[in-house]
Amino acid sequence: MQKGEMLYEGKAKKIFRTGDPGVYLVEYKDDATAFNGLKKGTISGKGELNNKISAHFFRLLEHRGIATHFLEQVGEREMLVRALEIIPVEVVVRNIAAGSLAKRLGLAEGTALPRPVVEYYYKSDELGDPLINDDHIAVLGLASAEEMNVIRKTALVVNEILREYLSERNLELVDFKLEFGRSDGEILLGDEISPDTCRFWDAQTKEKLDKDRFRRDLGGVEEAYQEVWRRLVG
Amino acid sequence: MQKGEMLYEGKAKKIFRTGDPGVYLVEYKDDATAFNGLKKGTISGKGELNNKISAHFFRLLEHRGIATHFLEQVGEREMLVRALEIIPVEVVVRNIAAGSLAKRLGLAEGTALPRPVVEYYYKSDELGDPLINDDHIAVLGLASAEEMNVIRKTALVVNEILREYLSERNLELVDFKLEFGRSDGEILLGDEISPDTCRFWDAQTKEKLDKDRFRRDLGGVEEAYQEVWRRLVG
Ligand SMILES: Nc1ncnc2c1ncn2[C@@H]1O[C@H](COP(=O)(O)OP(=O)(O)O)[C@@H](O)[C@H]1O
Ligand SMILES: Nc1ncnc2c1ncn2[C@@H]1O[C@H](COP(=O)(O)OP(=O)(O)O)[C@@H](O)[C@H]1O
Ligand SMILES: [Mg+2]
Ligand SMILES: [Mg+2]
Repeated sequence: MQKGEMLYEGKAKKIFRTGDPGVYLVEYKDDATAFNGLKKGTISGKGELNNKISAHFFRLLEHRGIATHFLEQVGEREMLVRALEIIPVEVVVRNIAAGSLAKRLGLAEGTALPRPVVEYYYKSDELGDPLINDDHIAVLGLASAEEMNVIRKTALVVNEILREYLSERNLELVDFKLEFGRSDGEILLGDEISPDTCRFWDAQTKEKLDKDRFRRDLGGVEEAYQEVWRRLVG
Repeated sequence: MQKGEMLYEGKAKKIFRTGDPGVYLVEYKDDATAFNGLKKGTISGKGELNNKISAHFFRLLEHRGIATHFLEQVGEREMLVRALEIIPVEVVVRNIAAGSLAKRLGLAEGTALPRPVVEYYYKSDELGDPLINDDHIAVLGLASAEEMNVIRKTALVVNEILREYLSERNLELVDFKLEFGRSDGEILLGDEISPDTCRFWDAQTKEKLDKDRFRRDLGGVEEAYQEVWRRLVG
């Protein structure tokens, strides 16, 4: 499949057209950003690892009945996906308090939540990705109530599938961010699922194996991403 | 009814015990605060006006079938209310974008919303009253799903009643904040309904007749509160 015109360059990926208008090629970059772009850097090997890790999770989810945009991996840092009209809502699912949730609710990082928490953030660099609720989504016309119903339910099922799968690999799924989009009237899970978009902690040591190593200058960023990959395929 | 021990002094009111353990006396103060207590001042006459205005709205709502804590006005700045176990969730209903909603969603102040927006804020001075959603309320154990269902529905009915009533008095109900509490297993509307807790705009001139005059140093604060009272009884 040919790599056509670049449609969009984001903070972590480039999206290209292909010969088929219904298919895009995603190229994963080594670039890393945090705090809404305020912190910038490069994590060598990240593009390849996130491509492999995302492909692995999308295959797992498809196998378990989740409709995703994933088609196939076509290069070390490239995958083909269904072209989506992305819904500009970041869907975060949390099992353990960390990051902004710990701050918002005044909980110690690491507090287990009695049940998963779903949050929506308006995907807007300009506004700093603010937390929003279903009414905000409705008045902004971002998605219909039926679509949000599908999205919330799917996000919670994805959480159960990933949580179980990761726990067998000695990883705790602390939280993660999903993006969804429309294709032929259907809602598909899009974007990526990687240590850039999830918090993974070692189940015993609670060592962070995700982008928090970059955000918080903990060192060993590449090694952490590699370790996640090793545990997925090991 | 005797004025007993002071139970709590808040930013705008004092709560006293009475001879009856199920009844509290609320004393409305002239003190004004904004921005989570960072801005402080006094609005002379505010206590009396907010007591009168709140009593007026509670009577109207009771008359229209809403269960409130209001019992009776007993002094210029005092009312008797049912003792509530307050649910620490500020319930905001919005008809027109203003204040934090305009900022959060990137809307111009004054943008009419296609339908009312309900927001929940965690009542915590320490955390700065953060926006929260139903899942946050559940994991914090602040209220049950059934209680939140009653609260949301009641808040929307209160909005319809107040909006219509105010529009006949040439006032636009931009937004307002409610607090609810438990009494004998029942959810009652508590706290106050006043220019401290609502945004009222003149329907023609869009002049602000509420606490924004204090927050934004617009002058004429007492006059604005008086004007609201005049329109309610005029
Ligand atoms: N299947 C898809 N079709 C169209 N766009 C997609 C698809 N999957 C992800 N995207 C979008 O690709 C863009 C590039 O990703 P990324 O570099 O993470 O961007 P951003 O900096 O906006 O988060 C994002 O805006 C994302 O929403
Ligand atoms: N019926 C009631 N029973 C018990 N507490 C109430 C009742 N109505 C309001 N309150 C509480 O009274 C306190 C005093 O009001 P206020 O001065 O506005 O306080 P704050 O600074 O906490 O907002 C608030 O915490 C409010 O929740
Ligand atoms: Mg992204
Ligand atoms: Mg108050």
